[in-house]
Amino acid sequence: MKIVALAGGVGGAKLVDGLAQLLLPGELTIVVNTGDDFEHLGLYICPDVDTVCYTLAGLANLETGWGRRDDTFQTLENVQKLGGPGWFRIGDKDLATHLVRTRLLQEGLLLSQITQIFCRAWDVRHLVIPMSNQQVHTMVNTVEFGELAFQEYFVHQNCRPKVLGFRFAGIEMAQPTPGLLEAIDEADAVVFCPSNPWVSIDPILALGGFRKALATKIVLAVSPIIGGQTFKGPAAKMFTEMGIEPSALAVAQHYADLLSGFILDSVDTKLASELSIPVTITHTIMNSRDVRRSLAQDVLNSIQTIQESVQ
Amino acid sequence: MKIVALAGGVGGAKLVDGLAQLLLPGELTIVVNTGDDFEHLGLYICPDVDTVCYTLAGLANLETGWGRRDDTFQTLENVQKLGGPGWFRIGDKDLATHLVRTRLLQEGLLLSQITQIFCRAWDVRHLVIPMSNQQVHTMVNTVEFGELAFQEYFVHQNCRPKVLGFRFAGIEMAQPTPGLLEAIDEADAVVFCPSNPWVSIDPILALGGFRKALATKIVLAVSPIIGGQTFKGPAAKMFTEMGIEPSALAVAQHYADLLSGFILDSVDTKLASELSIPVTITHTIMNSRDVRRSLAQDVLNSIQTIQESVQ
Repeated sequence: MKIVALAGGVGGAKLVDGLAQLLLPGELTIVVNTGDDFEHLGLYICPDVDTVCYTLAGLANLETGWGRRDDTFQTLENVQKLGGPGWFRIGDKDLATHLVRTRLLQEGLLLSQITQIFCRAWDVRHLVIPMSNQQVHTMVNTVEFGELAFQEYFVHQNCRPKVLGFRFAGIEMAQPTPGLLEAIDEADAVVFCPSNPWVSIDPILALGGFRKALATKIVLAVSPIIGGQTFKGPAAKMFTEMGIEPSALAVAQHYADLLSGFILDSVDTKLASELSIPVTITHTIMNSRDVRRSLAQDVLNSIQTIQESVQ
Repeated sequence: MKIVALAGGVGGAKLVDGLAQLLLPGELTIVVNTGDDFEHLGLYICPDVDTVCYTLAGLANLETGWGRRDDTFQTLENVQKLGGPGWFRIGDKDLATHLVRTRLLQEGLLLSQITQIFCRAWDVRHLVIPMSNQQVHTMVNTVEFGELAFQEYFVHQNCRPKVLGFRFAGIEMAQPTPGLLEAIDEADAVVFCPSNPWVSIDPILALGGFRKALATKIVLAVSPIIGGQTFKGPAAKMFTEMGIEPSALAVAQHYADLLSGFILDSVDTKLASELSIPVTITHTIMNSRDVRRSLAQDVLNSIQTIQESVQ
């Protein structure tokens, strides 16, 4: 079975790790949001791409949900002593990723090429594709500050500002990474991982030609909202501030006619009847590598059921 | 007494620390070679300025002669895992200096301003002035590789190539840092620290107007060559390869008519008679902070003697 998975940060990375446990490298293509990439301390930082790669490589920090495990902060501590910013926590090991990426970008390599070099170095065997080699900047329109760059909102302001809307600056000029639309074309199904619909999946969907490429595909989403809340991140808060009651149902409605099927947590069983597409009810809080794999298995089973029903 | 000290790396930094132990902040201006500054990993690195500042701040690594003490190498190790270069050893703490400097340069600050910001953060109270805010690149002409950028010769090739000569690229366009010539004008004496004459002191002397500013000044040099050898670094090897027998005498002759006095190590006592300028014979291997201070005291005494003799 050939799968393309769309992912943002932690939740997406965990399901992707589950899928990678079940699928061969040639069977899984992982497309990662780059809308929250940004420049900081002169470095080009791709938080979602790094979270996905670190998770697949077994290097991720599971406690924080960002950065590398067993990392130290000697550089950042000394940057702060010299008056530099400390709000974005870059560990010493993590810093190497940003330093080498920045240097290779300056030498003219594409983000997708650099990501492949890194995956090879970290022994990540499944293909990770940043959604575009052109920069897209997710901008968060807020009541308090007007428009904020994503990391300003997400990390610096700790998601406190009230959200009015989103804009993906540069999206008109951004091309889907070469090979991405072809991978969808060849895929049996596309999986929207349990990532933030507004700022992780929507930037990918906003790429030119992307929604059209999905039109004839089996598309399955795993709800990042469980019992009206998110396990991590501001997705539920964003739904509320956008005037929508946060729920798995709201997620399914957000993706609307793109979806062929949906995966709900068992706490949301009662919502299944409100959906007109096939629903799988399972345990979706991925608090171990085993649960990642079993949720991934549920995803694959669900796809197979949908495949059989349409044949 | 007002002193301007010219310094390169380790030896210069040690004498400067001795002088800083004896002189008030307003009495000592330290001018540091920037000819071996270079860009590496996208960072702007000033090895001599950093060595001087780290030494004065008590942060220097005394064993290696470069970098910071108690440093770790998590970032560099991971840079190498990603295929980046590891030949220039940047520690995690040290890296912060280069990161913040690079960022501030990109924001338009001058190297001299950044150096002052860093000195304030590290509680270095004496004025450290990089020789110029414009880039000068010391190029080493070698038998084996032709012309090499200084750090390529010094670190990457470990000073092995045979030296044919030196060139200070950009020196015609480089201005002495504002305040530098004025500091010399106001000084009672200028001290050439025991740094490499070819690649640490000569780049400073090559700045437009610099030799002229020294013409009417008491200038004292401390020999970096002791018993025909250097305590550290390639100065003796360079003299040999340039066809000159390495000795304290050769150092004095190198500086020639700039000098008003010279300081020799006691192992070179017999060379004193060959010099026509006042010579102080003392212990010059600065293997403790106390010896740094006592050598600095010898320097100040020697200057005073010369002052008295010319009055």
